Amino acid sequence: MSANSPSPQIVALPGNEPLTHALAEQLDAEQLSLEHRRFPDGESYLRLHGDPRGRRVVVVATLDRPDDKIPPLLFAADLLRDLGARQIGLVVPYLPYMRQDQRFKPGEALTSRSFARWLSAHFDWLVTVDPHLHRYASLDEIYSLKSTVVPAAPVLADWIVREIEQPVLIGPDAESEQWVRAVAETQDLPWRVLSKQRHGDRDVSMELPDMAGLENHHPVLLDDILSSGATVAEAARHLTAAGLARPTVVVVHGLFGDRARELLRHAGVKRVVCTNSVMAPESDIGLSAQLAPAIKAHLQA
Amino acid sequence: MSANSPSPQIVALPGNEPLTHALAEQLDAEQLSLEHRRFPDGESYLRLHGDPRGRRVVVVATLDRPDDKIPPLLFAADLLRDLGARQIGLVVPYLPYMRQDQRFKPGEALTSRSFARWLSAHFDWLVTVDPHLHRYASLDEIYSLKSTVVPAAPVLADWIVREIEQPVLIGPDAESEQWVRAVAETQDLPWRVLSKQRHGDRDVSMELPDMAGLENHHPVLLDDILSSGATVAEAARHLTAAGLARPTVVVVHGLFGDRARELLRHAGVKRVVCTNSVMAPESDIGLSAQLAPAIKAHLQA
Repeated sequence: MSANSPSPQIVALPGNEPLTHALAEQLDAEQLSLEHRRFPDGESYLRLHGDPRGRRVVVVATLDRPDDKIPPLLFAADLLRDLGARQIGLVVPYLPYMRQDQRFKPGEALTSRSFARWLSAHFDWLVTVDPHLHRYASLDEIYSLKSTVVPAAPVLADWIVREIEQPVLIGPDAESEQWVRAVAETQDLPWRVLSKQRHGDRDVSMELPDMAGLENHHPVLLDDILSSGATVAEAARHLTAAGLARPTVVVVHGLFGDRARELLRHAGVKRVVCTNSVMAPESDIGLSAQLAPAIKAHLQA
Repeated sequence: MSANSPSPQIVALPGNEPLTHALAEQLDAEQLSLEHRRFPDGESYLRLHGDPRGRRVVVVATLDRPDDKIPPLLFAADLLRDLGARQIGLVVPYLPYMRQDQRFKPGEALTSRSFARWLSAHFDWLVTVDPHLHRYASLDEIYSLKSTVVPAAPVLADWIVREIEQPVLIGPDAESEQWVRAVAETQDLPWRVLSKQRHGDRDVSMELPDMAGLENHHPVLLDDILSSGATVAEAARHLTAAGLARPTVVVVHGLFGDRARELLRHAGVKRVVCTNSVMAPESDIGLSAQLAPAIKAHLQA
């Protein structure tokens, strides 16, 4: 940013105030307040307090349980544009609609592509944390705006070595291997991955890897998303059944479906921790320090 | 429609099945089923059963409490387009986001314009019933797709003369005059409008019009939208206080905000009836016969 360019502005969608405050400090950004309420008939009313004319504006919106958050988010982008903002970026620590990336059955909606189109049409750039990329190699395959993916691995690893003595990282399934390996490598921690053995259409068993020499380590179950909690709970049951200590669960995005917490408790999980990509009581791992440099790069572009 | 052109198809968004069945019969349209469910993390999953390739498809979606219905609706439109539909029309008996049509205070979002843009980008045409046009002269001011407004006045008038002996139509405020007059004129019924006297910023009183000669008529309070119910309830209290019979309330769009029914009951309302533009226990007035010709015109265009 040139010395005489005005400072960026930052706006929180409802529920994103703590992360927005933290980012405002790191970015030296002016906070604008966005009023959002609902009429008796459920329609959204939005009002921006502040003047974004000619300014670069960062919108912060995490999008777990996304559907009723999407219209207010797009309204906010249109409003900023109407009021003369020069650049509108989106910080979306949890990016939804990454799941349905192909038609597994005929007639299925490719929601990932539609959603990417909507965001790309309303924002100039996007910063997110570890999106659930399956078959897409990068966001650019579906998002036409500029995007940056910030990895959560460094902050997860920091948290683990600070809070847990002698950890061993464990991925609940093959898909989690990429996250587990990334976290383990930043701090040179031991890690293992559980494997699923498929014996038939519905007959799937989990197999514990060789834990020789790690019996006295504290197991840390690691995954990118915790939604129903079923996979992690099953893994936890296998660990305790094998005589290991009750595991700590560390995930990037803690979505916590209806019965997830209960399921994890019953499976013998000692503690669950996630980042503040979604606001939950378990959101103990802050992301603002990781997000700020990526946001700055877009603001300076 | 030419004799050898394939029949149109019709699809209900969740909750719109009864109106869709009725329209399918009137239009001689093939019904496709759209599966919609939510993942544990709240994301929408949609799957169309049937093949819309090369076909004209009518999507039926009423949009009261609209925000969490908007993403599935737009996903459905994208899906139909992806699967090769030749024309995609929207029947939206209750069209939301007509309220915020100008910035009453600085910084307010013009949600009506954003919403109009989204629908216009996803559908080829739109049919609705009595949208709440305030300062817009027609939908064309904000909607760039072809649209038809179907009036509910004929079916409201039919219902009133069929169900109520010696009705007198009463509008609760000056804004309702257009609806009251339209309904009254189709059946040559007597009508009156209550007037609001403003004595200060918050001091507003209602004034009963001259009811001479109509004392034994049954008062029918008429309005386009029932949301909080406050205006109609206040009007009802004035009518009963003046010694008239407990009124029947007839509205086009029954949105019924949280306390609306309670409020109307306490105000002495005898009965509330609305069209099926929104599905409610009070939706006794069917719209399919009014909607079908307007839909046919778009299908044939």
